[in-house]
Amino acid sequence: MVYLTRRERFSAAHRMYIPEWSDEQNLEVFGKCSNPSWHGHDYVLFVTVKGPLPEKTGLVININSLKEIIREKIIDKVDHKNLNLEVDFMKGINATTENLAVAIWNELEKPLREAGCELHCIRIDETENNTIEYYGKKD
Amino acid sequence: MVYLTRRERFSAAHRMYIPEWSDEQNLEVFGKCSNPSWHGHDYVLFVTVKGPLPEKTGLVININSLKEIIREKIIDKVDHKNLNLEVDFMKGINATTENLAVAIWNELEKPLREAGCELHCIRIDETENNTIEYYGKKD
Amino acid sequence: MVYLTRRERFSAAHRMYIPEWSDEQNLEVFGKCSNPSWHGHDYVLFVTVKGPLPEKTGLVININSLKEIIREKIIDKVDHKNLNLEVDFMKGINATTENLAVAIWNELEKPLREAGCELHCIRIDETENNTIEYYGKKD
Amino acid sequence: MVYLTRRERFSAAHRMYIPEWSDEQNLEVFGKCSNPSWHGHDYVLFVTVKGPLPEKTGLVININSLKEIIREKIIDKVDHKNLNLEVDFMKGINATTENLAVAIWNELEKPLREAGCELHCIRIDETENNTIEYYGKKD
Amino acid sequence: MVYLTRRERFSAAHRMYIPEWSDEQNLEVFGKCSNPSWHGHDYVLFVTVKGPLPEKTGLVININSLKEIIREKIIDKVDHKNLNLEVDFMKGINATTENLAVAIWNELEKPLREAGCELHCIRIDETENNTIEYYGKKD
Amino acid sequence: MVYLTRRERFSAAHRMYIPEWSDEQNLEVFGKCSNPSWHGHDYVLFVTVKGPLPEKTGLVININSLKEIIREKIIDKVDHKNLNLEVDFMKGINATTENLAVAIWNELEKPLREAGCELHCIRIDETENNTIEYYGKKD
Repeated sequence: MVYLTRRERFSAAHRMYIPEWSDEQNLEVFGKCSNPSWHGHDYVLFVTVKGPLPEKTGLVININSLKEIIREKIIDKVDHKNLNLEVDFMKGINATTENLAVAIWNELEKPLREAGCELHCIRIDETENNTIEYYGKKD
Repeated sequence: MVYLTRRERFSAAHRMYIPEWSDEQNLEVFGKCSNPSWHGHDYVLFVTVKGPLPEKTGLVININSLKEIIREKIIDKVDHKNLNLEVDFMKGINATTENLAVAIWNELEKPLREAGCELHCIRIDETENNTIEYYGKKD
Repeated sequence: MVYLTRRERFSAAHRMYIPEWSDEQNLEVFGKCSNPSWHGHDYVLFVTVKGPLPEKTGLVININSLKEIIREKIIDKVDHKNLNLEVDFMKGINATTENLAVAIWNELEKPLREAGCELHCIRIDETENNTIEYYGKKD
Repeated sequence: MVYLTRRERFSAAHRMYIPEWSDEQNLEVFGKCSNPSWHGHDYVLFVTVKGPLPEKTGLVININSLKEIIREKIIDKVDHKNLNLEVDFMKGINATTENLAVAIWNELEKPLREAGCELHCIRIDETENNTIEYYGKKD
Repeated sequence: MVYLTRRERFSAAHRMYIPEWSDEQNLEVFGKCSNPSWHGHDYVLFVTVKGPLPEKTGLVININSLKEIIREKIIDKVDHKNLNLEVDFMKGINATTENLAVAIWNELEKPLREAGCELHCIRIDETENNTIEYYGKKD
Repeated sequence: MVYLTRRERFSAAHRMYIPEWSDEQNLEVFGKCSNPSWHGHDYVLFVTVKGPLPEKTGLVININSLKEIIREKIIDKVDHKNLNLEVDFMKGINATTENLAVAIWNELEKPLREAGCELHCIRIDETENNTIEYYGKKD
């Protein structure tokens, strides 16, 4: 079993808030991250897949296939976008990086399986100091 | 003459656009950066000051004074904010990183001079691939 | 189960040595790291916690609580300090990064549990080339 | 159990290809990475070992012994070399980073065991965006 | 005058040597960098342009134009290539990073001028420890 | 004229203080950096030299000569040392990074000139947030 991690980046706006709560409640729980006028990040996404190593090629997965899947399913939908307003797979979900990691897992798991490898981890760096990792429900 | 650079970070939302232009015109010139629903960045700000070295202390400037000035004049105003809507010194200015660098220079030049050193350069990394530097009008 | 990692930094002096040993013995085992006049590092600390994701907030832990705990229990005690002489939780322990990681785990495990999440990993980068990780006794 | 990771770097040329295949077939599967005139990388190698912490020294392994083993067994053989033509432990193997990670594992596992610790992970960053990890057959 | 720097990367093979010299002479002057079987790097290229800031747009240059010029004139020619054998603008030139920086300057100066801005600096990081900068003949 | 920068690292202990001042005065001016029990850093040193490009070799300076000079004159004297107590060229000087940069310039200028190139800049990163640059008296 060998693990391959692809790093991609996207820049997006977001805010954390719960619609049923007042601005005061949101501010109390989410602090400045709940700013109604939005803020944003240069998110760094790490997608780790795993698989056995075919003796012939010695590749876990063709890196171009992996890049293509990540671009089509994720980057094109989130880059230079508003995570709360414009991303189909984040609709109705509070735009925390935790929730974003789980949502990206759910978008990528099946296409990657169909491409012949297994999704192992979704990691997102929100800033250089804050990182989220998700290994799926099996964890 | 010795140069001291302080690095600070802030996360903000923005868009590039010219209000008198149509969405189509803005899209043509600014591309996805003109998205009306905003996007954002983890901006990295480098403030470089210069000055002679006092023989006694060997400090260009007290680093805590420098940090304090940058925090009060800039970071508190831009961090977790919308650069187009919420920042007083960016009002009426297209929120490109070039304009942001010039505006930050204008905010910091006087307070730094009053603190005893000379502003030399404002550098902003918008992403790991795009950097703007401004050295003032004298350049 | 989602994992959240917070990165913090501290600058400290230390040396590696065993008091009962002669300077020669210490030099033989610990090399230049046993210099009796000390040396130091810009340590980078990564604290990883894990927990289920509350459906409402989508946060493993409030990041400000996590930062506060790390600051109070660790950073305030080690930053700009001498790890051998001034840190209560390192008293009588050889100041290797391995021992430091275990000691920091012991300081943080209970407060983090009380804050509602589980400590998963303490990672310390001593330099850009040397990293220590500790996952607790259960590992 | 404590984990120690040593980071080393080497610059090497390589190409990916299967000798029995035509240039066209290789190009189709490996893309520009199959260029017969070679290309190269600044590979970053992370060797992670694990072991219990001796109460006296508080060291998983003497870092100089670890560095020495990695240098003698790996770096001296791959740095400023052609991975396909000049590296004994890569002979007859397609020079993918996956295969390289497995081969380095096989070279290091025994010497590290003899030095008193257990190899846990070989990680190689081929570029800042592509990373391979291998944890041995037991995984 | 505002400065904009675009960062791009390319992976290439090369060797340093002077054809008229013997392998021994080349080895003496260029060391392991003269390996006849090649080695390679993940080069990082920084292209800095400068220009006045148009009041309307606040852009030194449209970043997509800049990216396009760098890609067409440089990256497509050097990425996953052998710098000695396959790059037209390096023909007959010893493939040192110094010479590469000057050659890239010569390729980019005119197209950038035609695109409305002035080339200020070509910087290349060969490894994380070795960097070359060239500011043109005027320097 | 081409510029070559070599990056080196050293780990050292230091404190900032003026011997004639009381601990209280030192604390007031230098803050926690004046801790009498020392603290330390992983300093990153960038030495930039410049020179014309010899047509034959295309090298500003042989990189091994440059590394050798920096190692002998600086790194061997400061790495894993106490900057205040053990470094000959820092005797009697307050160990600020500003003073350290000027002192390193003074140590390197002549040997580099004798090696055939001109020292252009000494840059030291004390932490990832604080950087000092010195370009000599001519600046």
